[in-house]
Amino acid sequence: MIALGSILTKRGMMNMQVLTTRELKERLQELQGQEICLQGWIRNHRRQKNIGFIDFFDGTCFKNPQVVYDGSIEDYDTVSALRVGAAITVRGVVVPSYKDPTTPEVQAKAITLEGDCPEDYPLQPKRHSVEFLREIAYLRPRTRLFQAVFRVRSVASMAIHTYFQDRGYLYVHTPLITANDAEGAGNTFTVTTLPKGSTAPDSEDFFGKATALAVTGQLEGETFAMAFSRIYTFGPTFRAENSNTKTHAAEFWMIEPEIAFCDIHQLMDIEEDFLKYLVRTVLEKCPDELEFLDKFTGGGLIEKLRSLADSRCARVTHEEAITILREANKDGRFQFEPRYGEDTAKEHEKYLTEEYFHSPVFVYDWPRDIKAFYMYQNDDGKTVAAVDLLVPGAGELMGGSQRETRYDLLTARMDELGIGRDSFDWYLNLRRFGGCTHAGFGMGFERLLIYLTGVDNIRDVIPYPRTPMNCEF
Amino acid sequence: MIALGSILTKRGMMNMQVLTTRELKERLQELQGQEICLQGWIRNHRRQKNIGFIDFFDGTCFKNPQVVYDGSIEDYDTVSALRVGAAITVRGVVVPSYKDPTTPEVQAKAITLEGDCPEDYPLQPKRHSVEFLREIAYLRPRTRLFQAVFRVRSVASMAIHTYFQDRGYLYVHTPLITANDAEGAGNTFTVTTLPKGSTAPDSEDFFGKATALAVTGQLEGETFAMAFSRIYTFGPTFRAENSNTKTHAAEFWMIEPEIAFCDIHQLMDIEEDFLKYLVRTVLEKCPDELEFLDKFTGGGLIEKLRSLADSRCARVTHEEAITILREANKDGRFQFEPRYGEDTAKEHEKYLTEEYFHSPVFVYDWPRDIKAFYMYQNDDGKTVAAVDLLVPGAGELMGGSQRETRYDLLTARMDELGIGRDSFDWYLNLRRFGGCTHAGFGMGFERLLIYLTGVDNIRDVIPYPRTPMNCEF
Repeated sequence: MIALGSILTKRGMMNMQVLTTRELKERLQELQGQEICLQGWIRNHRRQKNIGFIDFFDGTCFKNPQVVYDGSIEDYDTVSALRVGAAITVRGVVVPSYKDPTTPEVQAKAITLEGDCPEDYPLQPKRHSVEFLREIAYLRPRTRLFQAVFRVRSVASMAIHTYFQDRGYLYVHTPLITANDAEGAGNTFTVTTLPKGSTAPDSEDFFGKATALAVTGQLEGETFAMAFSRIYTFGPTFRAENSNTKTHAAEFWMIEPEIAFCDIHQLMDIEEDFLKYLVRTVLEKCPDELEFLDKFTGGGLIEKLRSLADSRCARVTHEEAITILREANKDGRFQFEPRYGEDTAKEHEKYLTEEYFHSPVFVYDWPRDIKAFYMYQNDDGKTVAAVDLLVPGAGELMGGSQRETRYDLLTARMDELGIGRDSFDWYLNLRRFGGCTHAGFGMGFERLLIYLTGVDNIRDVIPYPRTPMNCEF
Repeated sequence: MIALGSILTKRGMMNMQVLTTRELKERLQELQGQEICLQGWIRNHRRQKNIGFIDFFDGTCFKNPQVVYDGSIEDYDTVSALRVGAAITVRGVVVPSYKDPTTPEVQAKAITLEGDCPEDYPLQPKRHSVEFLREIAYLRPRTRLFQAVFRVRSVASMAIHTYFQDRGYLYVHTPLITANDAEGAGNTFTVTTLPKGSTAPDSEDFFGKATALAVTGQLEGETFAMAFSRIYTFGPTFRAENSNTKTHAAEFWMIEPEIAFCDIHQLMDIEEDFLKYLVRTVLEKCPDELEFLDKFTGGGLIEKLRSLADSRCARVTHEEAITILREANKDGRFQFEPRYGEDTAKEHEKYLTEEYFHSPVFVYDWPRDIKAFYMYQNDDGKTVAAVDLLVPGAGELMGGSQRETRYDLLTARMDELGIGRDSFDWYLNLRRFGGCTHAGFGMGFERLLIYLTGVDNIRDVIPYPRTPMNCEF
């Protein structure tokens, strides 16, 4: 590995290893009494008579070291005048911590200023509202809340890749600019190089046709599953929905695995195993971040995650779920009446997961009329092999289905829904050229992050969120 | 891990483990003589009197098993009529291979058809041109060439994540829809929800302003490096350049690491270490794929990659490089005269890497006037701390720089180039609020893949390439 160890010699200072705070924490025992260098920023600076305390961070580790100095430090007056937000290099000795044995402490011999910070720096050491922090989204990664959230985001991303790669799945980059309107959903962003107001025909546009940002990579993913058996996508997705809610963003990341020779029951096995793996990995790799987030979000986060990791997901058909809900609604507890053949409401999902099963629940075999055209049509003539995973405290986290592989039934359904076959000939051909039972699911990455971090607004789990009327930075 | 082992019991067949060909190859010795099941597709089917050979693949392993059957198989006539492209389930016994000990061979007891394939299936077992295969991009992943290319793509993607995550870098998803025109480069795709031909003001568009697809995530990456010290991006990038070359695509993936407390020399250390890691990982994890690609592309691929993994990258300033090139040009070998203060041509890069240094070469300290506004201005008043990595057989593979951290010099340069400060106030503020020496680079992922696979056209390393007048599937 490359350490940044040479920096100080280059700048004419003593030959000393620069450590990240992550390395310092990992090697804390071994480094006791040794002289080291750190480079990072001042989060807080408290001065007392002849002694100063700097809350120091470099973002590589959530547990920040405390830097202590006293009158013996080089240039005491300059050091004690250092402001919050300034970038500094610290040279000092690792000492036992006054606070707790897992928080590193460094007794500084010299602190040099790398980059100053003015008095009007917006991130003063006090509690800021998340709304205020959204307005300074380029600075908020320096706060403890967003250090935790974005570390979890990074660790969860890696866990997703590790899960699938370890199991032989191929990572596929499906296209983002597309001429398909895959879900038939509308609400897409147009992509064009024609000048504003131009009425030139689409044939004169960059791609020679009308194009939009993709709302899914599933259909292309299926083509790769028919070649590599197990694939996954993990990339950006776009929806031009004009809804200002806590859970909608115009640009978000999605994971879409697709598995050949897999039916809906095996799909549920995979979804359950995958979700528990992600939760366990984040619990294991981000204990300090989760501890902070647990407190920040009012408690219960870690307990919720541990409980999920240990639980067994219940499995019921949509019809069974409605029967349970109608039974529960005899006292009129729900605002919306649960009905066979119709979608469930949030209050119904909450009841099923949190009050009835006390676990995540797969609801499968949904009414055909409220689901997408590509889903496998069950023999009952009424339902399709679709499955939603409902999770306590999160609602629907994954949605998947076994795909309709019978050419005639698929085209009949498309005709019924008025979906033109022409632009989907390649997709239909998958059913003619060695088709097989296959299934896949999609998971919105930010929805997972809201669940993992306890943070309740999608704007706070995306580095630079894009929502209606908001495209800053 | 979840195996797909339960599938056959569910379908009423015998209780037997379904293996992927990857698992078969990994456990080949242990499985000798045992009965197993495989599920996948027929790539080729040769029949002789009372014996048949099926080239079988499921895409999880590049080394495909051979399935052999004879007159003793259940329903011989049906089996021997199976067509190329069909999806099948094979039950049989693992036997020693006639061909070579590393190619698995299965003596089939039963073969059942999962999905048929017609006679006019386009992928018959013969050599197809890459141009033809581009037209059936949804089927080409089933060919050996694209099984190799897209496996390398997936393995290289994972290697990129592993490299950075193991070293404490944070993975950042920078936004793709942006109101910045970061490089000042023009050639962006407009993103809009206004109806075609609309002349409504931008304030009525979805985001309330004009937006485009991002050409880089660097500037946002810098904001995260000032909070987490070491970050990387790995995501899609867009250029609306109307150039039909072998190396340009409108949509491609890019890796952009950014490191705080890092100067241009340390940046070169990181780039070199990173590139060698990627090459070594692909050599290690994709030996069969590379062997095929080596032959397919005319030989020399593996030797080229091994040589890079072992080489030491040379480092010269742009001025030194021009001096070397001018010396070499005394016999007029170059079409373009190498000049101080100007960009180098492809022929120059080729000479430096392949004839002069016989290794990759970092060329750094480039003339200020031909580089971007955000690069660190060297004391000579003429150059900036930019660095291009030139690689034998690939040309420029990475481009990076130490960033200008001095507020006054940065704004002066922006003014000089006519880049408005208003929309970059947040970027400029990074220089006011605890700025520090930092540097980063960008690598086009497809350019790396062209290098790693030996395939010479970017259209053949992207699942569904987007180029001028082409947006199929």
